[in-house]
Amino acid sequence: MDAVDVIRTKRDRKALSDDQIDWVIDAYVRGEVADEQMAALAMAILLNGMDQGELARWTDAMIRSGERMDFSTLDRPTVDKHSTGGVGDKITLPLAPLVAACGAAVPQLSGRGLGHTGGTLDKLESIPGWRARLSNAEMLRVLRDVGAVICAAGEGLAPADRKLYALRDVTGTVESIPLIASSIMSKKIAEGTSALVLDVKVGSGAFMKNLDDARALAETMVRLGVDHGLRTRALLTDMSTPLGRTVGNALEVREAVEVLAGGGPRDVVELTLALAREMLSAAGLEGKDPADALADGSAMDVWRRMIAAQGGDPDASLPTARETHTVTAPATGVLTRLDAYAVGVAAWRLGAGRARKEDPVQAAAGVELHAKPGDRVRAGQPLLTLHTDTPERFPRALEALAGAYEITENPVGFTPSPLVLDRIGA
Amino acid sequence: MDAVDVIRTKRDRKALSDDQIDWVIDAYVRGEVADEQMAALAMAILLNGMDQGELARWTDAMIRSGERMDFSTLDRPTVDKHSTGGVGDKITLPLAPLVAACGAAVPQLSGRGLGHTGGTLDKLESIPGWRARLSNAEMLRVLRDVGAVICAAGEGLAPADRKLYALRDVTGTVESIPLIASSIMSKKIAEGTSALVLDVKVGSGAFMKNLDDARALAETMVRLGVDHGLRTRALLTDMSTPLGRTVGNALEVREAVEVLAGGGPRDVVELTLALAREMLSAAGLEGKDPADALADGSAMDVWRRMIAAQGGDPDASLPTARETHTVTAPATGVLTRLDAYAVGVAAWRLGAGRARKEDPVQAAAGVELHAKPGDRVRAGQPLLTLHTDTPERFPRALEALAGAYEITENPVGFTPSPLVLDRIGA
Repeated sequence: MDAVDVIRTKRDRKALSDDQIDWVIDAYVRGEVADEQMAALAMAILLNGMDQGELARWTDAMIRSGERMDFSTLDRPTVDKHSTGGVGDKITLPLAPLVAACGAAVPQLSGRGLGHTGGTLDKLESIPGWRARLSNAEMLRVLRDVGAVICAAGEGLAPADRKLYALRDVTGTVESIPLIASSIMSKKIAEGTSALVLDVKVGSGAFMKNLDDARALAETMVRLGVDHGLRTRALLTDMSTPLGRTVGNALEVREAVEVLAGGGPRDVVELTLALAREMLSAAGLEGKDPADALADGSAMDVWRRMIAAQGGDPDASLPTARETHTVTAPATGVLTRLDAYAVGVAAWRLGAGRARKEDPVQAAAGVELHAKPGDRVRAGQPLLTLHTDTPERFPRALEALAGAYEITENPVGFTPSPLVLDRIGA
Repeated sequence: MDAVDVIRTKRDRKALSDDQIDWVIDAYVRGEVADEQMAALAMAILLNGMDQGELARWTDAMIRSGERMDFSTLDRPTVDKHSTGGVGDKITLPLAPLVAACGAAVPQLSGRGLGHTGGTLDKLESIPGWRARLSNAEMLRVLRDVGAVICAAGEGLAPADRKLYALRDVTGTVESIPLIASSIMSKKIAEGTSALVLDVKVGSGAFMKNLDDARALAETMVRLGVDHGLRTRALLTDMSTPLGRTVGNALEVREAVEVLAGGGPRDVVELTLALAREMLSAAGLEGKDPADALADGSAMDVWRRMIAAQGGDPDASLPTARETHTVTAPATGVLTRLDAYAVGVAAWRLGAGRARKEDPVQAAAGVELHAKPGDRVRAGQPLLTLHTDTPERFPRALEALAGAYEITENPVGFTPSPLVLDRIGA
């Protein structure tokens, strides 16, 4: 088998054989296929696509590159959620303990932010003492004792995906439906959950800018999941505007705790409950109404135990930024647009995100939103508050916000986009 | 400027800007753009193409990555030939001294064989003492004293092309018209010749398998040359069957010397003269008939001086192979097909070519052809003789020849393909 033959096959718009796929993934992990060869193949896949058979085999080969976890010893059904990434998307934080409070086990392997999108692990690390990295045994123990665990994926899980993802990031080959779908699903299948709900984001703040692409990605992932025996569903949800009223690590943890306490922004509560219902249904726990677990404090109780089990202090006060800068409304009227991508870039530039994988993030940096689309604002009233420990970052963050919002005096027929746009799966 | 932005531009089927092209070529030579990034870009170029403006700028940037040679101090017009590579293509050997004998200066920078195609330098190195590597000053001196020089391109000439060519070779990105055209033309323009004749090969033994692709490549290169002030023409010539009656290094030198002595196979003489006439016309030396310079020994005289000037002994006997194996005709009839690619692979496997750039070649290995398409053969008569120093190579060479030839008892209306298929340029 030869890397150039494999590359040429896909370059010439033919389907890769099972043997070619198995060999190229394995040889890449072993270092026999070089980065430049895999980069050329990834670009050929991005431009020429993969059919359903190739994609299933590619995903299998990535799963087989590492270990598979096994939760069959748990006495509860397992269910996991994956979001394709957005701005202000702190949903995993209230959702995992909420679904655990309703009787499921939630083994939530999460990631870090890259670019303008935030990462769940970065958010939780703003809680003093909390540790993202657990051994497989520790993870299983927290899951058994508490019902929910949010932690980093171990090194042994789908190592082919880890290596390929880092390569795609620097070679302009991220935005490919088969490569995105196989990356997400190989990790989720290897992780060993028995049910999975996908939150596929659509809009300026998401990878998928339009509904058709998002639907194609969701359908591809649901099919891959079902073919591997996972009960899989997807919601397509709006990411044209940030979720909730905060973007940034500690800011978002604070908002998640408000939701767990029965309050919090309406859109965050709505999406948390919608995803919780899908997860419970996928786990075969349809009798429970997750709204009750928010109202009676049982979700908050799981949250506190989950944070404590990973070394965090749920009562510790969260870091606050050394400096803030407030942007006021330039006119009176209705906020008709607040662009998710622009706010995400502003938060990133304030220090909430990282430019390279090895960069640190600021726990307290981010953007607070005092109004959301549909809200009425008065000229001079605070619209956004920027938070950072390094005020020299304000100018470039403000640049990102130029043209990011629109206030209309008397908007005719304006209604904000619905949050849940579509649902895929049985 | 960022490599991912450049890759994405081409990936998304947009034209690269002048600044993007200048930056990416320069940054690649400096090592700031990594091999995996250039590989992804090369695949995007192969699949999405480049327009004429991008191609001209890309070629310019490759030229500017190194030094440019200058032959303006010579008192003769300079003209060079480039072949896109074939099987048995020893034409440069008689052609360069022949054109020099007619009054032009021929600065022939040549390459080595890779894959199934032979390389001019490998062929000449079968002459005892002959050196491929000359300094720029030595090259100019041989050119001035003898009128023709055939040598390796110096390290300083288009280093971006050298690095990119090695990358394309291992990433399945060789077969792209803009990448092939810019690779060839950047070296030829940097070399400083004032006229250029391209021999674009078509058929099984060539990169371009069909006439349309070959014509597109030829037109692209002629336009690039003319835009850079080079008088440039191209002949499209048949490479469905090997040129001449020998394939292999010393075997081909022997045949070239036969042509210079006024003999040699008809097709080699025909193509040598056709290319010589194009070169002399491009150099403004239309009065000369190159056939005279073959007949009167003046081309042979230049050959002998050229070989001697580079340390070679033109009277030395050439190496012969330790072992031979003869393939006989299985039937009586007319040879209607003798496949160039198959014969090229057989010669390569016998030791005439190399699998990796650093491999040595056998000077004496190769294939002798006792018949060419159109010739009548008798069952049991020798058809091919295989030559090698390492007889364990015979079986794999014979495998390559399975199905490579066809003998038809009474072929109706069969005529071998004409040698010159088309001509491009003013």
